[in-house]
Amino acid sequence: MKIGILGGGQLGRMLIQEALKYDDEWFTLDPAPDAPCAKISDQTLGDFADYDAVLNFGQDKDVVSVEIEHVNVAALYELRNSGVKVIPSPEIIETIQQKILQKQFYLQNDIPSPDFQIIQSKSEVNFPLPFVQKANTGGYDGKGVQVIKTDAELENLWDVPSVLETLVDIDKELSVIIAINENGDTAHFPVTEMVADTQLNLLDFNICPAQINNSTQQQIEVIVQKFIEAAKSAGLFAIELFLDKNGKVWVNETAPRLHNSGHQSQEGNANSQFEQFYRILKNLPLANTDSRGFSGMLNLVGEAGYSGKVVYDGLEEVLKLPQTYVHLYGKTETKPGRKMGHINVLADTREELLTKLAHVKSLVHVIN
Amino acid sequence: MKIGILGGGQLGRMLIQEALKYDDEWFTLDPAPDAPCAKISDQTLGDFADYDAVLNFGQDKDVVSVEIEHVNVAALYELRNSGVKVIPSPEIIETIQQKILQKQFYLQNDIPSPDFQIIQSKSEVNFPLPFVQKANTGGYDGKGVQVIKTDAELENLWDVPSVLETLVDIDKELSVIIAINENGDTAHFPVTEMVADTQLNLLDFNICPAQINNSTQQQIEVIVQKFIEAAKSAGLFAIELFLDKNGKVWVNETAPRLHNSGHQSQEGNANSQFEQFYRILKNLPLANTDSRGFSGMLNLVGEAGYSGKVVYDGLEEVLKLPQTYVHLYGKTETKPGRKMGHINVLADTREELLTKLAHVKSLVHVIN
Repeated sequence: MKIGILGGGQLGRMLIQEALKYDDEWFTLDPAPDAPCAKISDQTLGDFADYDAVLNFGQDKDVVSVEIEHVNVAALYELRNSGVKVIPSPEIIETIQQKILQKQFYLQNDIPSPDFQIIQSKSEVNFPLPFVQKANTGGYDGKGVQVIKTDAELENLWDVPSVLETLVDIDKELSVIIAINENGDTAHFPVTEMVADTQLNLLDFNICPAQINNSTQQQIEVIVQKFIEAAKSAGLFAIELFLDKNGKVWVNETAPRLHNSGHQSQEGNANSQFEQFYRILKNLPLANTDSRGFSGMLNLVGEAGYSGKVVYDGLEEVLKLPQTYVHLYGKTETKPGRKMGHINVLADTREELLTKLAHVKSLVHVIN
Repeated sequence: MKIGILGGGQLGRMLIQEALKYDDEWFTLDPAPDAPCAKISDQTLGDFADYDAVLNFGQDKDVVSVEIEHVNVAALYELRNSGVKVIPSPEIIETIQQKILQKQFYLQNDIPSPDFQIIQSKSEVNFPLPFVQKANTGGYDGKGVQVIKTDAELENLWDVPSVLETLVDIDKELSVIIAINENGDTAHFPVTEMVADTQLNLLDFNICPAQINNSTQQQIEVIVQKFIEAAKSAGLFAIELFLDKNGKVWVNETAPRLHNSGHQSQEGNANSQFEQFYRILKNLPLANTDSRGFSGMLNLVGEAGYSGKVVYDGLEEVLKLPQTYVHLYGKTETKPGRKMGHINVLADTREELLTKLAHVKSLVHVIN
């Protein structure tokens, strides 16, 4: 089958890597000649946000999907009209692309998400402080989001269509990845949890399973069911959640694609998010995704002050550790904050996992 | 690092697939434009048995290795002389390539292998029946090997340089995969066992760990140590073994490369033979390869009577089974006996494993 992916980054790379177990032809659309998928797919150089580029790329494919949500949706509608299978649906991509539509989707479908005001410009602000401003479009990896705490900070507001959202008093950040195939089979991965490295005060381990009580688990199950019913689309979706200090779960946002919070599934689950997504693209039976004990992930991010040809200092020490799996993304140039790879770790207990992750983190540095 | 592999078949494909976790440039030399590695490596079309083809291919690489042993060794010597790293050594490839040298290697290094006579032609035969004739060169996947049981069958003898070898009264067929890096670190995988499907009287499951007693394990450990000392080369080596009905272990033959008897390591061990081989090529710390319970593999082989565009009949049923992993090789055309893929299965007990493997085998058929 000819499978076309909009975007050729690390998510696409790990998808294709996993799916090399099967016989398909992989195509990617990405503007960067050295994109992570460049050498393992038939790459078309082009902008996935451009109507013509997406339409031309997709028209001879059996299925078109995305590894990033900032794609040209009009072209996806057109492709679907012309008979190309598009997963997930253009409707759900369009909804998720725009924070305003995304919030309205939660409201309409009784999915709990923080109270909000929609503004078209700065002048319309009428919302209690403190709040989060989420720009309607263009957000990614924390970009397009800012916290406004005081009256003085109001002047920092971006003058763009936005959602203003109540700041949740966060106890834990959680994530759940949902799979829906065209047959209507559904499944979800065990809930994962972002864990703060308290020493360095950084949020950077995602671990599985999350340490949550029955009430939290139940609230998430309800959210998952509501989302599945509302989405009306095959696809893999990552829902990022907040558990607040009163024990209530809120949806922060959803990604209509493979997600960083599912990377530990590569070795931590019976099948990974990449295998599951592949099966969705081909409408195959969904895979079992039971956990193999405790698993966690550390992102390898370019350190501040280093730009240029990447060096993974300390990586050889990491390779000596058992139950530790290095995943690099084939990016030659590092820059501050760039996601260059990740490391997955397995363990028998949560405590052992956190100790191992902290040790791995102390060993490796992404420099140049 | 620029890594060049002679051969672009399924072993190379699964190596590159695994190693996409790391940042390297992969090159393959293979005569088939549709070789399994064609789309995931920078492929040079050419014959790996040809001196000039191998020399030209290898000269700008950092390391050159093989995924098949029938390669031009003279060119590998030349490449090494010119400063290219060659793994495994041309010497050990040359020894293993030729059954006569291979037998002499076992004899010289006190590695137990069945009694033999070397012949240059049919007329020299002076060896007790029954015996196995192994042609000196060109053997692969059972080709170049025949059993001669009676005086009448002597006329079937191939009139080529050969090894004649005592027929072992086999209790079990075993395999052990050995890893040696340039630092001299060594490791080996748990011993695996070929299991006969008694219903169909076919040998086609390879399972791990083998069901063997302490004496057998001890004999294999001694063979492994002797091989490591004698090989004097970095590399990944698969030693195929016979356990005879008196409890003695014999070396049948050795492959200087990744091996079909290690495929279940993809999901069955903490790290696979492919990961281990990658680490050898880069002289990295060897990986832990502990077993995850019981694992086994079924080869997907083209059924008799079917040639043409492959169809994996029943594969969707297999995908419904938990702890079951399909690996296809990207070959579009099936023919009788062609290795098209394999399926790995995990289980908690040997009995459960064999039941699952037999069930999988009953479900899937490689036809067209």
